[in-house]
Amino acid sequence: MISAHWSNNNLQPLHNSDLFWLDLSLVLMLLLFIYFVDLLPAKNGEEPTMQFLLEVVEILTNYIRKTFDRSTKVLDFHHPHQLLEGMEGFNLELSDQPESLEQILVDCRDSLKYGVRTGHPRFFNQLSTGLDIVGLAGEWLTSTANTNMFTYEIAPVFVLMEQLTLKKMREIIGWPDGEGDGIFSPGGAISNMYSVMIARYKFFPEVKTKGMAAAPRLILFTSELSHYSIKKASAALGFGTENLILLNTDERGRVIPADLEAKVIEAKQKGYVPIYVNATAGTTVYGAFDPINEIADICEKYGMWLHVDGAWGGGLLMSRKHRHKLNGVERANSVTWNPHKMMGVPLQCSAILVRERGILQGCNSMCAGYLFQPDKQYDVTYDTGDKAIQCGRHVDIFKFWLMWKAKGTVGFEQHIDKCLDLSAYLYNKIKHREGFEMVFNGEPQHTNVCFWYIPPSLRGMPDGEERRKRLHKVAPKIKAMMMESGTTMVGYQPQGDKVNFFRMVISNAAATRSDIDFLIEEIERLGHDL
Amino acid sequence: MISAHWSNNNLQPLHNSDLFWLDLSLVLMLLLFIYFVDLLPAKNGEEPTMQFLLEVVEILTNYIRKTFDRSTKVLDFHHPHQLLEGMEGFNLELSDQPESLEQILVDCRDSLKYGVRTGHPRFFNQLSTGLDIVGLAGEWLTSTANTNMFTYEIAPVFVLMEQLTLKKMREIIGWPDGEGDGIFSPGGAISNMYSVMIARYKFFPEVKTKGMAAAPRLILFTSELSHYSIKKASAALGFGTENLILLNTDERGRVIPADLEAKVIEAKQKGYVPIYVNATAGTTVYGAFDPINEIADICEKYGMWLHVDGAWGGGLLMSRKHRHKLNGVERANSVTWNPHKMMGVPLQCSAILVRERGILQGCNSMCAGYLFQPDKQYDVTYDTGDKAIQCGRHVDIFKFWLMWKAKGTVGFEQHIDKCLDLSAYLYNKIKHREGFEMVFNGEPQHTNVCFWYIPPSLRGMPDGEERRKRLHKVAPKIKAMMMESGTTMVGYQPQGDKVNFFRMVISNAAATRSDIDFLIEEIERLGHDL
Repeated sequence: MISAHWSNNNLQPLHNSDLFWLDLSLVLMLLLFIYFVDLLPAKNGEEPTMQFLLEVVEILTNYIRKTFDRSTKVLDFHHPHQLLEGMEGFNLELSDQPESLEQILVDCRDSLKYGVRTGHPRFFNQLSTGLDIVGLAGEWLTSTANTNMFTYEIAPVFVLMEQLTLKKMREIIGWPDGEGDGIFSPGGAISNMYSVMIARYKFFPEVKTKGMAAAPRLILFTSELSHYSIKKASAALGFGTENLILLNTDERGRVIPADLEAKVIEAKQKGYVPIYVNATAGTTVYGAFDPINEIADICEKYGMWLHVDGAWGGGLLMSRKHRHKLNGVERANSVTWNPHKMMGVPLQCSAILVRERGILQGCNSMCAGYLFQPDKQYDVTYDTGDKAIQCGRHVDIFKFWLMWKAKGTVGFEQHIDKCLDLSAYLYNKIKHREGFEMVFNGEPQHTNVCFWYIPPSLRGMPDGEERRKRLHKVAPKIKAMMMESGTTMVGYQPQGDKVNFFRMVISNAAATRSDIDFLIEEIERLGHDL
Repeated sequence: MISAHWSNNNLQPLHNSDLFWLDLSLVLMLLLFIYFVDLLPAKNGEEPTMQFLLEVVEILTNYIRKTFDRSTKVLDFHHPHQLLEGMEGFNLELSDQPESLEQILVDCRDSLKYGVRTGHPRFFNQLSTGLDIVGLAGEWLTSTANTNMFTYEIAPVFVLMEQLTLKKMREIIGWPDGEGDGIFSPGGAISNMYSVMIARYKFFPEVKTKGMAAAPRLILFTSELSHYSIKKASAALGFGTENLILLNTDERGRVIPADLEAKVIEAKQKGYVPIYVNATAGTTVYGAFDPINEIADICEKYGMWLHVDGAWGGGLLMSRKHRHKLNGVERANSVTWNPHKMMGVPLQCSAILVRERGILQGCNSMCAGYLFQPDKQYDVTYDTGDKAIQCGRHVDIFKFWLMWKAKGTVGFEQHIDKCLDLSAYLYNKIKHREGFEMVFNGEPQHTNVCFWYIPPSLRGMPDGEERRKRLHKVAPKIKAMMMESGTTMVGYQPQGDKVNFFRMVISNAAATRSDIDFLIEEIERLGHDL
């Protein structure tokens, strides 16, 4: 079984190297008897280490080649119990004794084999898709450097890259001279949590020391269609989800500003204190952009913090054609922007950007002298640790910085314009197509295209409870067949009173019009007889 | 300048491959004219992609070789302004236009060149040190898979690995049958934050919806020497840092249980409600282990949640010889344990483990139907997203799982025993050595060895303000010289009324007795004339 694995292997030994590369068969035989303890830092560990890493790279490059090959499946689906019971040669259980490095390589290959190819041109399941080669190289380097962002001392290059990149992002947002602050966090939910914490600190700094008891009843506002992280933050930070007021949206999923103002007034009349509004730039399902300028007017009028959750839509700021959808973002007090979504940066890469300098530090610093010594030989204002709610912090900046170098600002713009063009192509193709029904009318604002597929059996049926009930089951059934055939992946969900519908999103640089065509036809093929 | 870079390059072309590898000089010339847009998914992008990635791997493997080579410096120190002004050929600024892939490779090489070799055998600066080759391979694979932990749907293998590994960790903690729950989080600070959130939810679940106003004044307890993340959590979550009571410690830095009980009683007398005690297993500076059993008795008596912060010391549970230092950990309600510290797993890898099943879900779930559809074709109890405060979550498990496979439980045990032996070696070597003074007496509990170096000029001086003032400056001066000469790195800090002292920690698998000898002699060499 293992030999069968190896016979499929493309590995070719290097020749004429100072590493004395061995003949292929010898390498493999050797790895059978080589264990973890033989690798660096072991004495004479250099040769097996290089052999082992080269084998791993061979597995990874094969995987990358196949990822971009449309004749490869997106996934080879197995149920949890199947993987838990163990597939041939692949056993997830951990044991007391070490396995040989040959088995470790088999484990690597199998872990990829039973996973999902999120970089496949036909993977459309998430907001983060695609496999950016330069970003990937950046991640490989980051893991090799294996350091921590919390001080300049141990991450001098990465700390400066973060500072420069955040400044560039603030310039693009439109804050004067790119002034302000920010930090990369482990994802949009944490970035949004930061925004709520900072807003609270701005208006009620005493909460940091005295707790929520020191403040009156504080009210937060967000769209009924916003990301659930705002709700999670309101629970975690001690506001309570009941003090997060949900705002009504129009037919396209955008916050209705008049509803915000009415709810602010209502809260104030009850004696509560509205402090924070989240405007979403690119909602998760509809891809809707809340009207930031109108919301900013209300925030200014009532003295509230304006946060823009651009986790998904922030990337559009890179496009001269599409950035108008975030008009007013420069009036925000803070912005969440995830390069790991629309900009194609590998996970994780999320920034929280703050207009006012010093407030991030003020909110989070604990001045732990044992971690951040003021008497170092360099300018310690570059140490970032005390601004974060984390202590150790993964280096998320390098891959992004490297991609920016490699693509230039224009490269990101082209990527975003292309994805939005593709979604317009999809929209135009299905809006009048038989068997397809749009969830809302008009061209999508983002790459989100929301639609129902109506199987022939439901097409003549009058709208009503029975049709709704049956339609609700269509998307899950098609999705299940899709996953089992492994041909493509797209998400579905219900929303409000709308039964399950497909939400197509495009952030994958590998996707083309032919993949969009494929998706449509695949849905028709799988759903035809439902 | 670039050609000089290349002449040092060890890259050897592959021969006889189905990829048609070109001659070395041709490859390099080609990359000069090849840009990001020529890589996959571009048409005919496979060949330049493989060339580019192979070049990157060449840079990384050279770096790895040098990392373990003691004749290489730990770092090549530059001040922030020097790096910002730009070193020869290395410019951090981002531009609108793309750079060639050749320049990108130079950027990669330079980013490593001006960084810090955290895997170097003489890097002792942090709790996370070393460069584990299998862990590194695991990270490379993780980046290549580039997926997200929030559903089984897109991370089937990784989600199951996380589940199995967390169960194994709970078994090692000693919870019956490994029952309970847990999740990997982006670091110990976030894991500790989870513990406070869950404890609050246990006693006052209504805070989730109504906010802190629904609870009486809640009190948390932790050691005066515990990690600052407990304080950060108390601020962030709305308790307020004043409601975090700091506990007195003995001369070795361990919490005095009687002080806890007295402070609990005092808080209750004031009408406050004590709910949470953090016992640290391995404090940051002293490496002290709080007496968990005695603290657990008090927690049981007064009905408080017991959390054990084993971010640093949790690894000792893998050692039959040292795990007794955490006796009582099985009585904890929750445990933080960072494999990325003492177990040598690459950053980030931190687990929060919870004894009671369901409470993590209860505390954090928002039941966002648009993210976690209940009508999927597989068993959705494997979806982890709604347990987390994050939405997207980086795959931190694979490298750890792979290391466990490769080392076995016994491999981790050997690593930990070896590190503790080394620290005992250091302790025994300096405890009576002229010019060294221990910060506390007795063999260290963890690998932390805390000491002052007393330069000859201070040796005869009587204890007093003048000596303290001068001694306070010794460690920073030695550290600065150390960094500028690049020979080794070790941390220092003041603590309480103690002036700056060195804190040596050993978690690096590459370190040997000769490196410890080197460190001692280097401190003497650099500090002799101060």
